[in-house]
Amino acid sequence: MVRLPKQVRMVEVGPRDGLQNEPAPVPVATRIVLIERLAESGLSAIEAGAFVSPKWVPQMAGSAEVLAGIRRRPGVSYPVLVPNMQGFEAARAAGADEIAVFAAASESFSRKNINCSIAESLERFRPVAAAAAEAGIKLRGYVSCVLGCPYEGEIAPAKVTEVAAGLLQLGCYEISLGDTIGVGTPAKAQAMIEAVAARLPRERLAVHFHDTYGQALANILAVLELGIAVTDSSVAGLGGCPYAPGASGNVASEDVLYMLDGLGIATGVDLAALAAAGRFISEALGRPAASKVARALAARTSKSVTA
Amino acid sequence: MVRLPKQVRMVEVGPRDGLQNEPAPVPVATRIVLIERLAESGLSAIEAGAFVSPKWVPQMAGSAEVLAGIRRRPGVSYPVLVPNMQGFEAARAAGADEIAVFAAASESFSRKNINCSIAESLERFRPVAAAAAEAGIKLRGYVSCVLGCPYEGEIAPAKVTEVAAGLLQLGCYEISLGDTIGVGTPAKAQAMIEAVAARLPRERLAVHFHDTYGQALANILAVLELGIAVTDSSVAGLGGCPYAPGASGNVASEDVLYMLDGLGIATGVDLAALAAAGRFISEALGRPAASKVARALAARTSKSVTA
Repeated sequence: MVRLPKQVRMVEVGPRDGLQNEPAPVPVATRIVLIERLAESGLSAIEAGAFVSPKWVPQMAGSAEVLAGIRRRPGVSYPVLVPNMQGFEAARAAGADEIAVFAAASESFSRKNINCSIAESLERFRPVAAAAAEAGIKLRGYVSCVLGCPYEGEIAPAKVTEVAAGLLQLGCYEISLGDTIGVGTPAKAQAMIEAVAARLPRERLAVHFHDTYGQALANILAVLELGIAVTDSSVAGLGGCPYAPGASGNVASEDVLYMLDGLGIATGVDLAALAAAGRFISEALGRPAASKVARALAARTSKSVTA
Repeated sequence: MVRLPKQVRMVEVGPRDGLQNEPAPVPVATRIVLIERLAESGLSAIEAGAFVSPKWVPQMAGSAEVLAGIRRRPGVSYPVLVPNMQGFEAARAAGADEIAVFAAASESFSRKNINCSIAESLERFRPVAAAAAEAGIKLRGYVSCVLGCPYEGEIAPAKVTEVAAGLLQLGCYEISLGDTIGVGTPAKAQAMIEAVAARLPRERLAVHFHDTYGQALANILAVLELGIAVTDSSVAGLGGCPYAPGASGNVASEDVLYMLDGLGIATGVDLAALAAAGRFISEALGRPAASKVARALAARTSKSVTA
């Protein structure tokens, strides 16, 4: 086997990227319990909310209450999404220890999603990045549509590199490269990573795969082979309803961890505890987890077979 | 990227291994239409049925009628499962052009599944293999539980090798190595393949992954990297109900093909036609396909977004 990283950091995006894409808002208390359960599983980074307009994203209303309500564990960061200075001020006031900004690798997606060009979005983040640095708040960057755009189709790896470089220049400690619509396959994922890593430090790159076409774990394996050692995922596959056709959910954290455990890669995360967090939120949402590992573990427990 | 095979043969097991594990028997006419649709998609091997006791496997009753009813396409084989001489005679009478025999890599599984030891099962297949050779009927072999057993847990790669060697010796042109309970992960899949390929010709090995823990595509990618170029799969993920907890379905053919297409690997299979076959059987079963690609394509069509 190609040499894989000995250790991988899992960034949990369920309470934000996941719940933000669920049909109905989830109460603050439920989000607090979820985040605490996730931290108990050993995850060291858990996206806790977003300081965006509740008019556009009602699911993320109450993020300040979430940050105020969680008991923070030492060594765990709780990043929140921030689109502009107004969001930054609210996040700072709420005691955020890390923020994330997001740009697209597709002009059309940028305009449709955040109503400005890519260049304008980076300019908008400049004062946010400066203020975060001043306040000692860590800054992470997202690039979306890195393997395809719903409006433009294929995206050139050079474009991904350019946007990622822009975010790094702003001061992001890490860039999460997102296959927002889940169309990527392993060779394309590798080609994109190679292009970006040719210009930017590989250890500053993370991946964020959606499992829309079932390719997420294969893609993660493919980029692990290139030395990428940080991956985003969403407990219980939050963000993609398992009953909705074409559910464009994040890859389930349980499935990622099962693979990493099997590969002998250290994560510090306990699968049983992670699955328990997934069960908690799935029960709260009243539906089965969109994680095959979660369902298999549940069936195994109920049948008492030691598989 | 590690060099991958330029070409992969997809063996479609939906009409047999898939439907055999669905809760209710599917009418013969529906199975005939399914097989013909699958052949139209470009698949060159489609498991068509099983000549086993209808008392034990009512889903496979009518396999002779299925074989009689399909219009066979040139260049396509329609293997059927055969457990013993009685099954072989019935398969031959029905005009089978290829048969498959099945052994387990786990003694406990062999006893629970086919009520005899592994050695006894191979002995039982000996006259079947001889008769098939005499009749000019191709013979394929399955080994189950190659990455784990529900009763024994881990299975030694040496045991898999031994059983695969036994089947090859009987005259099987190819051995399909099955992760029956879907517990395998990429490094374990590679270690198993390396062990078997150290003693047996690599080009005679196929893989058969179940997606119980969501690992199937990652495992397929991992063994492609070792030169394995034949993979079994099941259209629409037949054999694992998407609503059942712990559904232990075969990996969905659409998801496998999407990955192979993305890797630039030739299969001769058309994704749209394959997905249409999957829609046909999913509608007949009255439930959504257990294929993420199928669901994503359906959503894309309904939204008219060109992703």
